[in-house]
Amino acid sequence: MTKVDIPEDSLYGLANLPYGVFSTPGTEPRVGTRVADSVIDLGVLLGDDVFTRPTLNAFMSRGHEDWVATRRRITELVSGDVPAEAVHEVADVTMHLPIEVADYVDFYASEHHATNLGRLFRPDSEPLMPNWKHLPVGYHGRAGTVVVSGTDIVRPCGQRKAPAEPAPTFGECRRLDIEAELGFIVGTGSELGSAVPIEEFERRVFGAVLVNDWSARDIQAWEYVPLGPFLGKSFATSISPWVVPLLALTAARVATPIQDPEPLPYLREHEPWGLDVDLSVAWNGHEVTRPPYREMYWSPAQMLAHLTVNGAVSRTGDLYASGTISGPDKNQRGAFIELTWGGAEPVDVGGEQRSFLLDGDEVAITATAPGTDGTRIGFGSVTGRVLPATEAQR
Amino acid sequence: MTKVDIPEDSLYGLANLPYGVFSTPGTEPRVGTRVADSVIDLGVLLGDDVFTRPTLNAFMSRGHEDWVATRRRITELVSGDVPAEAVHEVADVTMHLPIEVADYVDFYASEHHATNLGRLFRPDSEPLMPNWKHLPVGYHGRAGTVVVSGTDIVRPCGQRKAPAEPAPTFGECRRLDIEAELGFIVGTGSELGSAVPIEEFERRVFGAVLVNDWSARDIQAWEYVPLGPFLGKSFATSISPWVVPLLALTAARVATPIQDPEPLPYLREHEPWGLDVDLSVAWNGHEVTRPPYREMYWSPAQMLAHLTVNGAVSRTGDLYASGTISGPDKNQRGAFIELTWGGAEPVDVGGEQRSFLLDGDEVAITATAPGTDGTRIGFGSVTGRVLPATEAQR
Repeated sequence: MTKVDIPEDSLYGLANLPYGVFSTPGTEPRVGTRVADSVIDLGVLLGDDVFTRPTLNAFMSRGHEDWVATRRRITELVSGDVPAEAVHEVADVTMHLPIEVADYVDFYASEHHATNLGRLFRPDSEPLMPNWKHLPVGYHGRAGTVVVSGTDIVRPCGQRKAPAEPAPTFGECRRLDIEAELGFIVGTGSELGSAVPIEEFERRVFGAVLVNDWSARDIQAWEYVPLGPFLGKSFATSISPWVVPLLALTAARVATPIQDPEPLPYLREHEPWGLDVDLSVAWNGHEVTRPPYREMYWSPAQMLAHLTVNGAVSRTGDLYASGTISGPDKNQRGAFIELTWGGAEPVDVGGEQRSFLLDGDEVAITATAPGTDGTRIGFGSVTGRVLPATEAQR
Repeated sequence: MTKVDIPEDSLYGLANLPYGVFSTPGTEPRVGTRVADSVIDLGVLLGDDVFTRPTLNAFMSRGHEDWVATRRRITELVSGDVPAEAVHEVADVTMHLPIEVADYVDFYASEHHATNLGRLFRPDSEPLMPNWKHLPVGYHGRAGTVVVSGTDIVRPCGQRKAPAEPAPTFGECRRLDIEAELGFIVGTGSELGSAVPIEEFERRVFGAVLVNDWSARDIQAWEYVPLGPFLGKSFATSISPWVVPLLALTAARVATPIQDPEPLPYLREHEPWGLDVDLSVAWNGHEVTRPPYREMYWSPAQMLAHLTVNGAVSRTGDLYASGTISGPDKNQRGAFIELTWGGAEPVDVGGEQRSFLLDGDEVAITATAPGTDGTRIGFGSVTGRVLPATEAQR
């Protein structure tokens, strides 16, 4: 038996206990939790086969009461001595995609982001569409292309046409961008033809991850009318490997900004709440922006209620992301197209002036939030490095 | 042993041999093929466990050479005597969703449909967007809400706002519609970062099904800017239970309409080909339109090449649909919004004047195509009945 030391300032104290899927050399992926600088093998700790699976889906599908009981049990056990064979150093493990993604939806829930993008993509119109303050605008993305943090991102190729060009050309994306987002994972689903009422959010949603919704802005701008973004997004969506349970985020709840006009009844919460999660985006190791999740207009519960109000099926493993998190200030914008105003106002990246991503660039998004015990808890990070397009792609 | 009789005019002769998943009372879903009015249990016929699974995915993932060999073997065996316990009457089986859907994409490949919808949704603009003739426009739909033919369709609720109304209201869809489409099922996928070249279509795509992409036009019209259709589509997408193998459709190949401007190289085929599939849409038993698949502008191979050109992952079980099939004539339009011109020109449905779907209405889409032996082969049908919205939904 051994004791896991938890330094007072650890972002992975007992108030966090995120779930992830890890392996050590020569072993199969399985479920663990992170405590300080250790990864605890939950199959070994709890003696429950559900944690020997290669994704969290089977555990999540057990439902909210099981999540509560499991968290309590882990807290108890980790506070005492744990079997030495359950403990691995973070540095010794490989992290895997934590969930089998069922459907992936991306929202557009930041008023600052939607306004900025509207100005950039449609300079001659009102930046916010008439529907924007009435419903959380969203669209389906490609579930098969959700990858875990650390996966290299091959620069996508595709059709793009600058406004001044007479016809589209094929080639490498010239405006490769990121979107810093928070993603929510559905733990227990709902049947065809039945909506998830807004108050069921807490029982349905298992946890949250960081999302980098990589975006090819030139491909997107040419393709997206009238059916929305497609190949400009579907080449890669990265998520952080540690799923922070919703149960760990109770101290992070904050009221959403005032919603005016008042939403329709199915979107009304007693007190709509978002999360006080502070993100940071590092470009080649240099922090360039700090998107604040508390500024998001639409709440996570509103997004889920909207998503299912038409009777759409929801399933264990559904991932829905918030859309780019942008605050009111320039250094709070969660996409480079906003941060650099379409490339017109480059930013300083370690002494270089940059607008969009170059081959070899690396982006790391990290985040922390208040924990229930007065500490802060960490989401870890979602990272990715841009590789050049392959010869075959070009 | 027994012999399966095949009448000369059967749509399920040896030139067809579609794959589906069936069960008989008290037994588990498993894979079969349809021959005339019989369903042949392929696990029993071929003695291969891959056909005892509840979906076609494991079989499809074996790849093209296996599909060819299996088809040859089934043809041989079914021509002679087969074990009596392998044979069931069509009337005695229940059909299930034949595949586990990985990602679902819906294209917009009919020029007639895109032009009609453009006129209806954006009366003040050019009906075809500038990108339309350069790339097959498409978007991701909700994989979890793909259901098998025969599943009841609960009328969706949601936000809708008619142009003259000052604000959106919540309630039942008032403009419930269909879209008659053909769907293609990916048998073998491709890796992140690698495109599927257009000439690989035949080796990657396993077969085709009929699709009814149920559409809530009032919800769609209000929500779809700027990120595309979402809840107006995600409440139900029905597919026919029998997957017609691409190997059965060689005699149905026809040249696509002339493509002008010439597509970019990654979308160029030696000879772009579509399929001479004749669809028929019956509304409460009355045929109201006959959409011709041969009129589709973009070919099935072009859609797959486009879908993956950015390096998006494709997987066994991916479903991509053509978008509404509409021909140049009014009685060839594959959606009721086009057929009735937004409701302004109702159609006769057994003596009643109809525009959009009423509760209790039933829609059946059927189709046939030329077979390789001079006969015609059938796709079967995709049907669905509209149920009223439940009290809880409203």
